[in-house]
Amino acid sequence: MIGASRDPAKVGHAILKNLIRSGYAGKLYAINPHAKSVLGIKSYKSILDIRGKIDCAIIAVPAKVANAVLKQCGKKKVKGAIIISGGYKEIGQYKLEKELADISKKYGIAVIGPNCLGIVNVHKHIDSIFLPTYKMKRPQLGRISFLTQSGAVGSTILDLIGESNIGASKFISYGNAAVIDESDLLKYLREDNETDIIVAYIEGVSDGRKFYDELKKTAKKKPVIVLKAGKGEFASHAAKSHTGALAGDYRVFSSMLKQAGAVEAENLEDLFNLSKIFLQPLPKGDRVLVITNGGGDGVLAADAIEKYGLKMADISRGMKLRLKKIFPKYTVISNPLDLTGDADSERYGKALQEAIKEKNVDAIIVITLFQTAGLNSDVVHEVISAANSTDKTIVSVATGGRYTQMLLNIIESYGIPAYESPADAVSSLSKSLQYYKKRARD
Amino acid sequence: MIGASRDPAKVGHAILKNLIRSGYAGKLYAINPHAKSVLGIKSYKSILDIRGKIDCAIIAVPAKVANAVLKQCGKKKVKGAIIISGGYKEIGQYKLEKELADISKKYGIAVIGPNCLGIVNVHKHIDSIFLPTYKMKRPQLGRISFLTQSGAVGSTILDLIGESNIGASKFISYGNAAVIDESDLLKYLREDNETDIIVAYIEGVSDGRKFYDELKKTAKKKPVIVLKAGKGEFASHAAKSHTGALAGDYRVFSSMLKQAGAVEAENLEDLFNLSKIFLQPLPKGDRVLVITNGGGDGVLAADAIEKYGLKMADISRGMKLRLKKIFPKYTVISNPLDLTGDADSERYGKALQEAIKEKNVDAIIVITLFQTAGLNSDVVHEVISAANSTDKTIVSVATGGRYTQMLLNIIESYGIPAYESPADAVSSLSKSLQYYKKRARD
Repeated sequence: MIGASRDPAKVGHAILKNLIRSGYAGKLYAINPHAKSVLGIKSYKSILDIRGKIDCAIIAVPAKVANAVLKQCGKKKVKGAIIISGGYKEIGQYKLEKELADISKKYGIAVIGPNCLGIVNVHKHIDSIFLPTYKMKRPQLGRISFLTQSGAVGSTILDLIGESNIGASKFISYGNAAVIDESDLLKYLREDNETDIIVAYIEGVSDGRKFYDELKKTAKKKPVIVLKAGKGEFASHAAKSHTGALAGDYRVFSSMLKQAGAVEAENLEDLFNLSKIFLQPLPKGDRVLVITNGGGDGVLAADAIEKYGLKMADISRGMKLRLKKIFPKYTVISNPLDLTGDADSERYGKALQEAIKEKNVDAIIVITLFQTAGLNSDVVHEVISAANSTDKTIVSVATGGRYTQMLLNIIESYGIPAYESPADAVSSLSKSLQYYKKRARD
Repeated sequence: MIGASRDPAKVGHAILKNLIRSGYAGKLYAINPHAKSVLGIKSYKSILDIRGKIDCAIIAVPAKVANAVLKQCGKKKVKGAIIISGGYKEIGQYKLEKELADISKKYGIAVIGPNCLGIVNVHKHIDSIFLPTYKMKRPQLGRISFLTQSGAVGSTILDLIGESNIGASKFISYGNAAVIDESDLLKYLREDNETDIIVAYIEGVSDGRKFYDELKKTAKKKPVIVLKAGKGEFASHAAKSHTGALAGDYRVFSSMLKQAGAVEAENLEDLFNLSKIFLQPLPKGDRVLVITNGGGDGVLAADAIEKYGLKMADISRGMKLRLKKIFPKYTVISNPLDLTGDADSERYGKALQEAIKEKNVDAIIVITLFQTAGLNSDVVHEVISAANSTDKTIVSVATGGRYTQMLLNIIESYGIPAYESPADAVSSLSKSLQYYKKRARD
């Protein structure tokens, strides 16, 4: 940690603290010429004073000094560096950034950044992000990895992922991409066995051809969800002064994404919603069964299913007869399957057990209004148990406040995506089917 | 409370409990032929046994008995009744519902329901909803009123409103609308001094002409936001078996809404997002200033502003010069105004104080990434203070977990709508401008 600081308000303090807290198994060194130790870790004047081998340097010193520090890393034969420091291309300091790239090349250092938030590697217990944990939750172990050009956007998504118990694998804020760019990172995550799903926030790419090639290869192997920012004239101008990225023509970019088989997110919420849909098995067809205890929510789901080009599955005669026998007379056995407002967990369980056996059904949307008096939290386990014993796609929907959120978090911790509205669930489901079809064709 | 029960699992228990808890100033009576008292309230065999005058009866007894009970209410000269009981039109019992309407007419009882969730009147401390408070938060005092055909959908929205501190005035779940329908309720809320904004979830209307007339009159006076469910073929079939509503042709309905000057919500989230935008002054024009501490979020906001037909406001030379003087050199004074990742509350305060004085700005989107180390919670008060001293539209945006939510709730409690993504904020802003323009034209 180069730029380790004793001042809690400094980035170099927060990073070291998070590195210690996250429990990395390797050895940590602090570099601060003015301190003997920082946060209980012995501090060195320069990286060259350290005797042991260093695998990776995290650099959080002013841009003017950062390049010199990187050179020292090179002399120390450090193979990787993360440069948090801003003050490069994004404020017009192209020369400084070019110098940085040259040093990286000369010494063979793989550099992430500059002007970035750092990385999180949940599997390896590395957390180099300088945001306090009370302000931003860290994710538990999972299979989704993130690439983000904007540290801010990335961190908010990571916070949501942390809050919702979905879990993550790697988080890489790559900032100005002076050396390692989005294409290199795609390639890396494609081969990474700890990553099943890749989520990317991109303002602009420097080498479109390289990006397309890596994206296409990657999307064949695992889903890649991309949010392109800087779509219009104003926005692309803003992107330039942010990470120095040239946003390019959005329509070209969008069709390139489609061609490559990536999944495009429309906005920030869509990115978050899509990142979790792929935790479930891909739907093999478009026939959706909706189970609900709120008639209105069933209607809204049916609306969305038509809007997003999916189909309401037909319930077989057999299932109808079986459910008629065990359900109260006033329940109508059709799709949406409205279990009515007095449904208990057992009724959900029975409906789900029938639903996962139905041949006509590719995906199941389970809407649970947890607010009703008759529904206890056991229903969560009915949903989890059904999802665990089928290869149909199961998604959960519930709208509401704290109590509802708490139960949705349990569901999500088992890899079942939970959505706050029927429309969100259906829209994500529809995009995962498109991904499945594209991959089946290619 | 007719059908008051000593059994905590029964609807008639939950309602009485909530009526007591909510602190209604009037007198409560319980009707239960088998108990001497329920929840500490003396119980009567029949409403006819009560000596005092009754203003409103809440009926939660089986449908077979409910009509007879309503007749007794008529004999007791009760002027209003809320019939919670289901088992009418929605399951094909048209005769029973006709009978109910006839009794209502004969005795002059205004009836809400049947097959509904009841009402909440925050100003009058009446809560007749049978959902437990630990599962569903109740809203604090506010100016938004809700009409909902589906009790379930309505209750989830009420839960969100409660959670977010936005506040509400009246909540009316009207179910099958056997007597009082959506048009009557619109008329009532139009004249209600405790209601500034009307939010409606509607599956179908029985009298289109009447609805159009009332809607048009109402929308001229206050914003009416409508979510129409049952848009497609499948969905309208589902709506019929839910509240017995004929959903009708969606396109006709949608253009009718537009013609009448109502604001149409696309889905449940949109309904929630739109309900709060009108707490702010209506934007008088389309020029939006974006203030942010996250460059990426600024880019996303700019994207959305172009997508939804708004404009990025030009920052005047004067404002530029003044901010240049006081802001760090590396901040670029343009729109989006990126205060950069190290922005503190003071920097936000200065930007906001300049922004509310700018003549070129109609609306301000304040994006705050609360996760950054340098931004403390004081920024919340900067936003509130700016909003309180301007008639420009101010909306807040922040994405994140619990810490972020907590701060957004404070902002919302001051009538400043907070959104979880730039796109949501811009989309809502754009619809409020459309409403303003339509009202200015008519």
